[in-house]
Amino acid sequence: MEYDVIILGGGAAGLTAAIYTSRAMHKTLVIEEKAVGGQMMYTTDIENYPGFPDGVMGFELSALMEKQAKKFGAEIIYDSFQTIDLNNKKVTTINTEYRFKVLILTLGAEPARLNLPNEKELTGRGVSYCATCDGAFFRGQQVAVIGGGNTALHEALFLTNFANKIYLVHRRDRFRGERYLQEKLIKNPKIDLILNSVPIEIMGEEEVKGLKVKKLKDGEELLLDVAGIFIFVGYNPRTEKVKGLVELNERGYIKVDRFLTTSVPFIFAAGDCIDKPYKQIASAVGDGCVSAMSAINYLESLSY
Amino acid sequence: MEYDVIILGGGAAGLTAAIYTSRAMHKTLVIEEKAVGGQMMYTTDIENYPGFPDGVMGFELSALMEKQAKKFGAEIIYDSFQTIDLNNKKVTTINTEYRFKVLILTLGAEPARLNLPNEKELTGRGVSYCATCDGAFFRGQQVAVIGGGNTALHEALFLTNFANKIYLVHRRDRFRGERYLQEKLIKNPKIDLILNSVPIEIMGEEEVKGLKVKKLKDGEELLLDVAGIFIFVGYNPRTEKVKGLVELNERGYIKVDRFLTTSVPFIFAAGDCIDKPYKQIASAVGDGCVSAMSAINYLESLSY
Repeated sequence: MEYDVIILGGGAAGLTAAIYTSRAMHKTLVIEEKAVGGQMMYTTDIENYPGFPDGVMGFELSALMEKQAKKFGAEIIYDSFQTIDLNNKKVTTINTEYRFKVLILTLGAEPARLNLPNEKELTGRGVSYCATCDGAFFRGQQVAVIGGGNTALHEALFLTNFANKIYLVHRRDRFRGERYLQEKLIKNPKIDLILNSVPIEIMGEEEVKGLKVKKLKDGEELLLDVAGIFIFVGYNPRTEKVKGLVELNERGYIKVDRFLTTSVPFIFAAGDCIDKPYKQIASAVGDGCVSAMSAINYLESLSY
Repeated sequence: MEYDVIILGGGAAGLTAAIYTSRAMHKTLVIEEKAVGGQMMYTTDIENYPGFPDGVMGFELSALMEKQAKKFGAEIIYDSFQTIDLNNKKVTTINTEYRFKVLILTLGAEPARLNLPNEKELTGRGVSYCATCDGAFFRGQQVAVIGGGNTALHEALFLTNFANKIYLVHRRDRFRGERYLQEKLIKNPKIDLILNSVPIEIMGEEEVKGLKVKKLKDGEELLLDVAGIFIFVGYNPRTEKVKGLVELNERGYIKVDRFLTTSVPFIFAAGDCIDKPYKQIASAVGDGCVSAMSAINYLESLSY
């Protein structure tokens, strides 16, 4: 199968790029591993994407962007790419080969782990990286939230809809998150702050039975009686499969120039997987647009 | 009057920045000279802003973004700023002084002129820089379009809704605009291409009576019998008033780093007025978001 543009990843950046390239009459394929929408799917009410004054649900906005891309002719398949062959310009999935003229990488980023001994085993059994997805399982129970950035604060507040008590565990004595979130948080009687502390052990074998945290100042250990542990300690770019193909920075994010061209002239990149300051839907959309415009210019230059 | 954030310009970038800063509980003022929406107001049907699969009218999208910014508490005033005082951190309009902690410049860009002798005098009397605004005045008449980029091609096609004949005058023998636009254009019987040619004289005193163009190859002159002349030959950033305050590039666009910080640490900039590759609503929104996030981080750093 031959395409002008193959976009790897169907989040906000990828769908935006698909809208642009397909509208510009370039045959476009989006390859998405899971569900279109990317990190939007982990957000309930999106209040800050411009154009939606009453807010929009993450799955709704995803569906709108998907519909828009398809309207202009973009195809979307659900598959996992295995290799990218730069010489023959093709992407290989388990069953199929797809040829491209330009590639746009919108691979996204995924939550970082704490790397505690049984964190992996208990993921889905009390350990979670998505309050929107799993919060409702902890109705009337106690949970811990780990982290001090915007996501941690936001998700802690969201969890007050379900849990009776939220312990917010943060390694420092102040938060990095936005001030209005901090104010909301401090006012909320369901939230207890456990500052200057780090999680050291997840209790439980079949499911989470508690969380042991250590106070950094005096080494005192505390056992929190929680059934859920929500971890928000940053993101890792989903760039393992493009390592060695395009240049990455020291944290694994794809290096791009201002045109969002990667180190390979016919590969562009956008969204959470690139080396840039903020992870927001609005900026992913902006990136998606820029990467597509550059891809379109590149394709136009080929046809002369 | 004191604000945390003053945003100069109420287009897509400015309104997006306002949504972000006001939602983050920072007292925000948008100062707009004309009408909110900026260049969006000169676009009828916007098909490529992600989230609107059925398209959205420029004035509608502007109104939605305005409503969203106001919902979070942003104030919008219609006034023209005169000076910016960096030492006292204040913006002066004709009647009022406004103090700020951070400034976001979203000044936009405006269409470039041809600088023909009576171009200025006949603007609004047949000479136009906006087909959306003025196309309907030329129903059943003949018009000329000057330019070869996306805007020129797009607007020439739009004008086929009104005019009987559109002469597309371009100084080169090929277009810079997107291929799908070119194809549409070539197919359209109402459009005549006049390539390798430049406009040299606008005929008429009270109103446009014709356009004289010169063929670049042999110097032959042609008189086009047109009542309207639509000029799309690029943009100039609206940065005259900030010259000397923040660093500009050689074309007058504001220099920014990847955080969209200007050469002054408490001044950020976004949208069409900054030095960047493409002028799109989606990318202005992306920029607006980034400039606001950086402004918020700066404000947070002040409060510790």
